[in-house]
Amino acid sequence: MQVTLPDGKQLDLADNATAMDVARSIGPRLAQDAIAARVDGILHDLMTPLPSGAQIGIVTKKNMNDAEEVWRHTLGHVMSQAVGQYYKEKGHAPESVKRGVGPVIENGFYQDFDLPEPLREEDLPEIERRMAAILDANLDVTRREVSREEGLKFFSYDPYKVELISELPDSAPITLYSQGDYTDLCRGPHVPRTGVLPKSFKLMSTSGAYWRGSEKNPMLQRVYGVAFATQKELDEYLHLLEEAKRRDHRRIGKDLDLFFTSEVIGPGLPVWLPNGATIRRELERFIVDLELAQGYQHVYSPAMAKSELYKISGHWDHYKDDMFPVMKIDQEELVLRPMNCPHHIQIYAHKPHSYRELPIKIAELGTMYRFEQSGQLTGLSRVRAMTLNDAHIFCRPDQVQEEFKRVVDLIRGAYDVLGFEQYLYRLSLRDPNDKEKYYPDDAMWESAENQLRQALDDMGLAYYESPGDAAFYGPKLDVQVRSALGKDETISTVQLDFLLPQKFDLEYVAEDGSRQRPIMIHRGVISTMERMTAFLIENTAGDFPFWLAPRQVVVVPIADRHLDYAREVEGALKSRGLRAETDDGNDRMNAKIRTAELAKIPVILVVGDKEQEARQLSVRERGKGERKGAPLDELAGELERRYKLREA
Amino acid sequence: MQVTLPDGKQLDLADNATAMDVARSIGPRLAQDAIAARVDGILHDLMTPLPSGAQIGIVTKKNMNDAEEVWRHTLGHVMSQAVGQYYKEKGHAPESVKRGVGPVIENGFYQDFDLPEPLREEDLPEIERRMAAILDANLDVTRREVSREEGLKFFSYDPYKVELISELPDSAPITLYSQGDYTDLCRGPHVPRTGVLPKSFKLMSTSGAYWRGSEKNPMLQRVYGVAFATQKELDEYLHLLEEAKRRDHRRIGKDLDLFFTSEVIGPGLPVWLPNGATIRRELERFIVDLELAQGYQHVYSPAMAKSELYKISGHWDHYKDDMFPVMKIDQEELVLRPMNCPHHIQIYAHKPHSYRELPIKIAELGTMYRFEQSGQLTGLSRVRAMTLNDAHIFCRPDQVQEEFKRVVDLIRGAYDVLGFEQYLYRLSLRDPNDKEKYYPDDAMWESAENQLRQALDDMGLAYYESPGDAAFYGPKLDVQVRSALGKDETISTVQLDFLLPQKFDLEYVAEDGSRQRPIMIHRGVISTMERMTAFLIENTAGDFPFWLAPRQVVVVPIADRHLDYAREVEGALKSRGLRAETDDGNDRMNAKIRTAELAKIPVILVVGDKEQEARQLSVRERGKGERKGAPLDELAGELERRYKLREA
Repeated sequence: MQVTLPDGKQLDLADNATAMDVARSIGPRLAQDAIAARVDGILHDLMTPLPSGAQIGIVTKKNMNDAEEVWRHTLGHVMSQAVGQYYKEKGHAPESVKRGVGPVIENGFYQDFDLPEPLREEDLPEIERRMAAILDANLDVTRREVSREEGLKFFSYDPYKVELISELPDSAPITLYSQGDYTDLCRGPHVPRTGVLPKSFKLMSTSGAYWRGSEKNPMLQRVYGVAFATQKELDEYLHLLEEAKRRDHRRIGKDLDLFFTSEVIGPGLPVWLPNGATIRRELERFIVDLELAQGYQHVYSPAMAKSELYKISGHWDHYKDDMFPVMKIDQEELVLRPMNCPHHIQIYAHKPHSYRELPIKIAELGTMYRFEQSGQLTGLSRVRAMTLNDAHIFCRPDQVQEEFKRVVDLIRGAYDVLGFEQYLYRLSLRDPNDKEKYYPDDAMWESAENQLRQALDDMGLAYYESPGDAAFYGPKLDVQVRSALGKDETISTVQLDFLLPQKFDLEYVAEDGSRQRPIMIHRGVISTMERMTAFLIENTAGDFPFWLAPRQVVVVPIADRHLDYAREVEGALKSRGLRAETDDGNDRMNAKIRTAELAKIPVILVVGDKEQEARQLSVRERGKGERKGAPLDELAGELERRYKLREA
Repeated sequence: MQVTLPDGKQLDLADNATAMDVARSIGPRLAQDAIAARVDGILHDLMTPLPSGAQIGIVTKKNMNDAEEVWRHTLGHVMSQAVGQYYKEKGHAPESVKRGVGPVIENGFYQDFDLPEPLREEDLPEIERRMAAILDANLDVTRREVSREEGLKFFSYDPYKVELISELPDSAPITLYSQGDYTDLCRGPHVPRTGVLPKSFKLMSTSGAYWRGSEKNPMLQRVYGVAFATQKELDEYLHLLEEAKRRDHRRIGKDLDLFFTSEVIGPGLPVWLPNGATIRRELERFIVDLELAQGYQHVYSPAMAKSELYKISGHWDHYKDDMFPVMKIDQEELVLRPMNCPHHIQIYAHKPHSYRELPIKIAELGTMYRFEQSGQLTGLSRVRAMTLNDAHIFCRPDQVQEEFKRVVDLIRGAYDVLGFEQYLYRLSLRDPNDKEKYYPDDAMWESAENQLRQALDDMGLAYYESPGDAAFYGPKLDVQVRSALGKDETISTVQLDFLLPQKFDLEYVAEDGSRQRPIMIHRGVISTMERMTAFLIENTAGDFPFWLAPRQVVVVPIADRHLDYAREVEGALKSRGLRAETDDGNDRMNAKIRTAELAKIPVILVVGDKEQEARQLSVRERGKGERKGAPLDELAGELERRYKLREA
């Protein structure tokens, strides 16, 4: 038989030759380093006979990540072997350890077991040690095909394997993989020797899992592991996991009394506690003031309407599954709104407009309702009621580019204040190969997409294009902010819309007296209050910027005799609108400081004899160390200025 | 027979004597001035035979208002007579004018007619002239009882009268009242002569009205009149009507672009336009800031919950008819909240509290939904969605009085800023004769009512008690503000509640470690945003105080060459957060000033050559006349200060 190498060379081989034979024929060093092969592009192990005429590439330890499914899978087998050894040494017969499935998953693997006694989390390090020993032993991994009878006989002690083998179609080969004293039913592929496996793995947890996912079946024990090609990658991953846990907005939301969800109120309907409500109120005032200064007109519109409104807008047809059920009384059919746009369109349409009035920018902190299954809901980030920093700009075709730029400027300004430094612009365009998915007007699309490109180019912004991500009715810009956990989240969007103005027959009177159709720009700058707050919690891990901190300043009197002065300081700060409090408890100073730090209060003012006498303060500020002898008035003024100017 | 006079004197009279006979027997002057009589406290006319032994009081022209039902009714007959004359002179047979009912109503009377041709609004002055002539003629008004046959015969031309007579029970006397050539079927009472009637009346309008209110019956024409004892009272009434029309919040809401209601969104769901939204936003920030400064903790809670929550609270049982229908999905039953209290209770209950933490004051701009029939809805004052300045104070029994006083102080502080000067305190108590209507705990009621009395006395406030106006669960204070139209509206309430803490099993840990039940105080200071805005619009007739004015300042350049300076002024004001604009239109200065005044912009800044050169302004301020030569920086600072301090 003949195979082709990546450089195009042909290689003649004996029938039933394997990829390992290919590697050996190229050189002993390659055979030594080989861990898997790509056969016509598909990952194979080195032990499987090759088909004639195949394209063969050898994957070595140098490009280990190209074969991560393979070595993660073998590591799963090694873990399974180690668990078997562990129970054997505890005196259990090897046949008493039975095994369900053991697949590769993102970042690692798991294996389901039916064990003679449960494996405890604290047993995992011992399993890891045994796994390391198996790697050190550099056992050969071997593959053999068996007949159905052989297979059934081999696994006669294990009802799960028997069930799996019995269900295999006649045509399917039954393969067993072994290393040392361990053999499992497996399709493969696997690495050739345990010595090529990386030791940068970790067993994470165990949990219960029903055989085949059905609660009618026995409960098995699932052991999870993660594995990376290098220790550095494993460390980074574990660090990120720790960070994600530390920054989990639900945990911090609980620790800092920001919000809670109540069983009797209902899932996905979070209640904002005073501390969380402070953050939300600050965010709301911030964005409203910013938008008012930019010529937006803020409105309040009801969070429901007759269902007819959403039939006209098209939401009824495209969005009904996400909407709350209709409330019918007599002849009336009312429904909670899933989006604010139809309401803002009613505001535009409620009186005639001249070209001179445009652009008209209708903005609202608009509360919307979306029905999601309760299983999908979490904290503030997946909810059923949400309040969006929403606006709709109604403009003339000749104003689109300018208005688009203004929105981008507004987004950048808001990000500056929020401290977002890393973000990407994604220009979401129509998929040119799938035009049927979009509003059918080629000229419109070409013009709109070019205008957005042009505007971004004019502004000198780096962006990437993403064909196929446009909305049905027009192209859009998504701004994706990199979170502290390294994820990109779409926070802001700017969408052009040619369709809704048509559906609602919107008009303006042009300079020549003719009636023209305005273009709508849907835009959100800081997203919903729920999502932005969840994002900020995770991003700051609770260390909110001074202006957003629910508790901004705590005054710590060293002794009881400093309490009056402490209260005076508190009063002076409060009269300037700052959120200040005095810790009048019985703890010692250091304990009070520690309490304040845990509560994420950014400014701690310590007052003792010296401070009291000189009407000064000792200032401990998060991330800025300590400053002694700050005069009260001066400090109060400085803090007020930072708060009002929303400085970090 | 014998009757008793108000001074206790007994008077002997012939059988069948009338009150007129009583008046005559006392003196001719009294007989001259008499218009009606009170017989055992009930109004009678002077022509009706008296029962023996009655208490008789003569009502004269001097205390005319004591008998307003009587003379307004006679005026109705006079109007009916005048209409008859009018059609007769137009050549119609007297029998062609048929009459439905003609009762006395608040401030006046009406009469339904079936006329040979419609009476037009412009005919009303002519009817009024004829009425005046009938009064001048001083016709005697006479009363006679007739048999059913006589009555039916007399009114044989009038099917409405025939129907009425036919339905009278056999026992009822059938009485006819006549003056001059006019006779009508009537129970009376009436004045004795048309000369005693006041000329201070006015016919207001005509409208259609179905006979007996059923659309299956013929449509009659209803003529309305108002009448007062004196011209002064009539003038005041007409002035008030004009004022009510001028101040109608729906009209002003339209004129000043404050809000609108959209057919396709739905009735009772007003949309706040940018100008109205500005007022609402200012009100919201005002009350939130005031409350935060007073130690309230503001929250945001969802406007819906599982219906279970309202079953526990009791709203479901007592309030279901006012609630929106339940939204059912799978197993879940969600419903829009009719009140915020159950949500705030969940916030209190979500973690344990010590006596040291109390009082806890949970506040919210809480949106609530109430279902009212669409016919009941109007403008911003009767709506289906409303946002209440709500708070619930959870306190210990020993804190009730102090917290109650603090709320009253807060209300007074808010009223000062809003410019409410006339208001009454109504202490609403349990009806001691109808205790079953209230939460059954005599000791609680006595203590609670006394505490509120005591607190009001301590504060030296004048209040009146209103037994029977308490809530089911406790006594309350209502603060009633006198509107510009002279109506008293309940704007603020403070209610004690012993029941909900029990229903939700609320607790705190007392100093001795025992678990105690807190008391709840429900309180609203500035009512719902909808109602307060409607009230403010009517009270100010659109002339909002400076801090609330949606458009605060307009800069008027005298000529085009002043436009740059005007824009600079506008910019300087905007940078201080003021709502400023420049009128760059083509109108002349005076027209621009007039436009600004109509738009209720309180501050108009005129800039011409002199102002531009000296960097000054000519200031025209509503109600304050004109001020020339105000330096720009100084004025901008003054306006900013007034805005931020919410000075009138």
